[in-house]
Amino acid sequence: MQEHSNRVRHLGKTIVFVPTMGFFHKGHLSLINEGRKLGDELVVSIFVNPVQFGPGEDFESYPRDIDRDIGLAQKEGANIIFIPDKKELYPQRFQTHVNLKELPNHLCGLSRPALFSGVATIITKLFNIVKPHVAIFGKKDYQQLVIIRQMAFDLNFDVKIVGVSTAREPDGLAMSSRNSYLTDKQRVYALSICKSLKKAQELLESGINDAAKIIESASKLIKSYPETVIDYIAICDPETLVDIKRIDRQALMAIAVKVGNTRLIDNIMLNPNT
Amino acid sequence: MQEHSNRVRHLGKTIVFVPTMGFFHKGHLSLINEGRKLGDELVVSIFVNPVQFGPGEDFESYPRDIDRDIGLAQKEGANIIFIPDKKELYPQRFQTHVNLKELPNHLCGLSRPALFSGVATIITKLFNIVKPHVAIFGKKDYQQLVIIRQMAFDLNFDVKIVGVSTAREPDGLAMSSRNSYLTDKQRVYALSICKSLKKAQELLESGINDAAKIIESASKLIKSYPETVIDYIAICDPETLVDIKRIDRQALMAIAVKVGNTRLIDNIMLNPNT
Repeated sequence: MQEHSNRVRHLGKTIVFVPTMGFFHKGHLSLINEGRKLGDELVVSIFVNPVQFGPGEDFESYPRDIDRDIGLAQKEGANIIFIPDKKELYPQRFQTHVNLKELPNHLCGLSRPALFSGVATIITKLFNIVKPHVAIFGKKDYQQLVIIRQMAFDLNFDVKIVGVSTAREPDGLAMSSRNSYLTDKQRVYALSICKSLKKAQELLESGINDAAKIIESASKLIKSYPETVIDYIAICDPETLVDIKRIDRQALMAIAVKVGNTRLIDNIMLNPNT
Repeated sequence: MQEHSNRVRHLGKTIVFVPTMGFFHKGHLSLINEGRKLGDELVVSIFVNPVQFGPGEDFESYPRDIDRDIGLAQKEGANIIFIPDKKELYPQRFQTHVNLKELPNHLCGLSRPALFSGVATIITKLFNIVKPHVAIFGKKDYQQLVIIRQMAFDLNFDVKIVGVSTAREPDGLAMSSRNSYLTDKQRVYALSICKSLKKAQELLESGINDAAKIIESASKLIKSYPETVIDYIAICDPETLVDIKRIDRQALMAIAVKVGNTRLIDNIMLNPNT
């Protein structure tokens, strides 16, 4: 992969990179499609990264369908589908991790302590292997996007980080590989998440800008559905992820909810001026 | 710097990188001289990295002489002398560090806990800025060399790491920017370090391969000089840095001693077959 990237770079071509954990849905395909517009050589990686899963999380059961993924990525215009081997990326005596001090101490980082060190480490590795000019990440994992931007900036990676809007089902559910875990009933209950985000925007437009009130409303709405356990509902600064009390500027509202055993996340950018 | 390196790489040239903290002595010049042989474009950086100094260490007083350094590096054949700005490398909100789990828990890492996270972080940053094919480090900082090798391997840096033998004064003292701190008397006492390493090799050649006995002998020799306080004397595996009891294969003997207020290090590779 490094040799290929060296050759492509030497030809003066721009490498665009879409790192994924596979099991593609329309969200992944919109990242790949966006990638096609931003450069010449489009590399899609598929790797379920063990280091970002904690004990008891769903590393083993995480859905996989490599053959289908390869077909879809090719159809969407990927030039290279890079599927590294777990033992090659994490050999015996592997011991180096990339850690951020502040951004992981919010949102998903609190309930998933291994997550963002694992993400920052694998993305550092993949950047060094794929050598992209541009890398593309979904805004559904907003904290991940913010952390990768910070990491790339702090470590002086010469890589442009691009965020792409969350793809949604027609009824509003944010697309996620983990949606495949949901029963038919849970699929209905999961809608409470995007509904509560939509309602938050409506409350803000109606003049309510007290974050606690908006969070309380979202909490009530989600709890009114069975099988839902809220991990967090936060309204925060989109760059630092620090909680905001009064929404007098753009704010990120982010939610994590367990529906049955499936942990789902979603977010919206609240803008007091729209 | 990144733009320059992109252009040089696009021309098909090999970039060799010698990262330094400046205040050049013959050791630095031998690294630069070695670098000239290993590629086309020779980049020497000068940066006293604040992040690798702990509280109470000598960051502020670390010797600096940029003008002299620039002249010496040019004379030795450096094409680029890269002197980054502290605020540019570590801006406000900087928060990303590269950490190794095991290799820092030996030798200098024990008494200088900030050191190797700081080293791994700045070298990651400089690799991403300078984009070298080859990077050169001195063997005097042997643990640093081992850690950078491991870090580069773990994070998949496409950079060849080269170690260069320690440069010594005619009487055997390992060259170090910190030797400038020594008084004339301390300069004599400091010789105890390299003398004890030489004696260790002689003991091994005479058939003694019990590490504890060799360490005891070195300890006695160093303590027989005034103003010396031993930080550590270790005989360990050259790759893992784990202590070795019996020297039945190649072993690293490493020493750190405070002579007055000046902390000096040195090491030797012990080989039972020579």
